[in-house]
Amino acid sequence: MQPLYIIKIGGNIIDAESKLSHFLQHFSQVPGAKILVHGGGKIATEVSKALGIEPQLIDGRRITDAGSLKVVTMVYAGLINKNIVAQLQANKCNAIGLTGADANLIPAKKRQIGAIDYGFVGDVESERVNATILKSILSAGSTPIVAPITHDEAGNLLNTNADTIASTLAVALAKSYAVSLIYCFEKKGVLRDVNDDNSLIPEITPTKYQELRENGIIAQGMIPKMDNALQALQSGVKAVHIAHADDVLTITNHKEPAGTVLHL
Amino acid sequence: MQPLYIIKIGGNIIDAESKLSHFLQHFSQVPGAKILVHGGGKIATEVSKALGIEPQLIDGRRITDAGSLKVVTMVYAGLINKNIVAQLQANKCNAIGLTGADANLIPAKKRQIGAIDYGFVGDVESERVNATILKSILSAGSTPIVAPITHDEAGNLLNTNADTIASTLAVALAKSYAVSLIYCFEKKGVLRDVNDDNSLIPEITPTKYQELRENGIIAQGMIPKMDNALQALQSGVKAVHIAHADDVLTITNHKEPAGTVLHL
Repeated sequence: MQPLYIIKIGGNIIDAESKLSHFLQHFSQVPGAKILVHGGGKIATEVSKALGIEPQLIDGRRITDAGSLKVVTMVYAGLINKNIVAQLQANKCNAIGLTGADANLIPAKKRQIGAIDYGFVGDVESERVNATILKSILSAGSTPIVAPITHDEAGNLLNTNADTIASTLAVALAKSYAVSLIYCFEKKGVLRDVNDDNSLIPEITPTKYQELRENGIIAQGMIPKMDNALQALQSGVKAVHIAHADDVLTITNHKEPAGTVLHL
Repeated sequence: MQPLYIIKIGGNIIDAESKLSHFLQHFSQVPGAKILVHGGGKIATEVSKALGIEPQLIDGRRITDAGSLKVVTMVYAGLINKNIVAQLQANKCNAIGLTGADANLIPAKKRQIGAIDYGFVGDVESERVNATILKSILSAGSTPIVAPITHDEAGNLLNTNADTIASTLAVALAKSYAVSLIYCFEKKGVLRDVNDDNSLIPEITPTKYQELRENGIIAQGMIPKMDNALQALQSGVKAVHIAHADDVLTITNHKEPAGTVLHL
C-alpha cells in the first residue's frame, strides 16, 4: 500500500510565527501523500478575550458555548487554516484547507449532556469519515489541511479535538494507505523524565506501554494520548510517532530514528 | 455545454440569519452544477470594532491593513463560509468551502501602490483561475462555496471583492460550461426608479445599456457592476442576472422571467 503521513501540529507551533513557517517548509518536503491536522493555540483565547467572550471551564475542561464556537470557527477554520494554506502554496505544496463540514468530510455527533454540558463539541467516528473525498484529493496530488471543526449534518458546526481528528482520519484511511500518524510537539518524544531531553523512549509496544504506565513513567495527560495511539494501531494504522516538530522530515525520510515510535 | 450557475450573495443576506437560511434552502435546490460566492457583511465590521481595529477608509474606499486582513480572513473564510457550508450540508447540498488560496484556486496580485495604498487587496485575472480543480469538484457532484479571499502565491492572503471573484470564475469556466452568473441582492433587479420595485428593467443588451447610461437611469455604483457584467458576457458567459435573492430558483428553473437579465 502507498504510504500516507498524517501529521498533527499543536498550538505551541502555531503560536510562534517563525516556528510555524519553519515547520511548514519541512512539511512541504514530506514526500508523497500527506495530510496536516492543526490545533488552535493561544490566538483563539486572545480573540475570545478581545471580543469579551470569557472561556468557560468546568473541572478544568473547556466548554464550547455559542460565542466560543464562533471564535474557534473564525480562528481555526479561518485565520490559522488559511494562513497555513497560503504558506504551503508558497512552498509549492498544493494545500487545500478543510473542516469536517466541507464535503461532509467528518460528520460528528454533538456530545450528549452528562455530568457536564460541553456545549458545541463534536464526537467523531472513523467509520463515518468521508474517505472517498480524501482519497480523491490525495490522488490529485493535493494536500488536505484539516481544521478541528466538524458538523452534525443538521447545520451546526462543532468543536473537535485535533488529536482525535488526526487519529480518526488515520484509522479511516488505514484500509487504503500504509498510514503513519505523527504527533508533533515541543519535546523530543515520550521522555522518561519530562525535564530531560536525553531520556527519550525511542520505541513503545503495547507491552512496554503497560510497564511504563505501571511504573508511573507515563502518567496524566500522556495516558489518553497513548491510549488513543494504541487504539489507532489496533485499527490498522502502521505506526504512531510522537516527536519534535523539527524531526518530521527525519521521520518521513527514514534517515535515522527520531522521536518515539509506537507500533504493535 | 452543461449549464453552470455561479451565484453571488452579498452582505445584506448574510447579515440576516433568517434571510440567509431561506436563501440557502433555495440555493440547495438549484439543479446541476453550481458555485456560490459570498461577500462579507456587517459581521466583519462588528468584529473589527470589538477587536479595536478601526476600518481605514481613504476617499470612501476601504483599506485592508494587516489587522483588517486578519479580520476578513476570520470572518469571511471562517465564520461565514463554514456556517454556509454546514447549512448547505443540512440541506443535502454537498458544499465545500474554499478561498482562492485553497488548491491555488485564485492566484492574485497585490494591488500596486498608486495614489492610494489599498493594502492587502488582491486583483485577479480569469486566465489565472485554476479551472481544473473547480471542474473536478463540480463533476464529483460537490458545490464550491467561495469566500472573497485570494493569495499572492508568496504566502500572503489578500482581500478581493466578491463581485469580481464571481465574474472572474464565470469567465474562467465559460469555456467548459454554459455559465449563467447571478448577482443576488435585496432589489428586484435593475430598476428605472430605485425606489419603485415595479420599475424593473427585465432585459439589458449592450445597446440598451448605453441608452440607460446616457439617460442617467444607470448611474453611480451600478456602472462598475454593469461594466463588469458586460465584460463577462463578451468573454463567453451566457447570461448575467441581477435579481432578488428570493428569485434564484425562478431563474434557474426557467419557470418565468425574474430580475434583470443581461445578454449580448
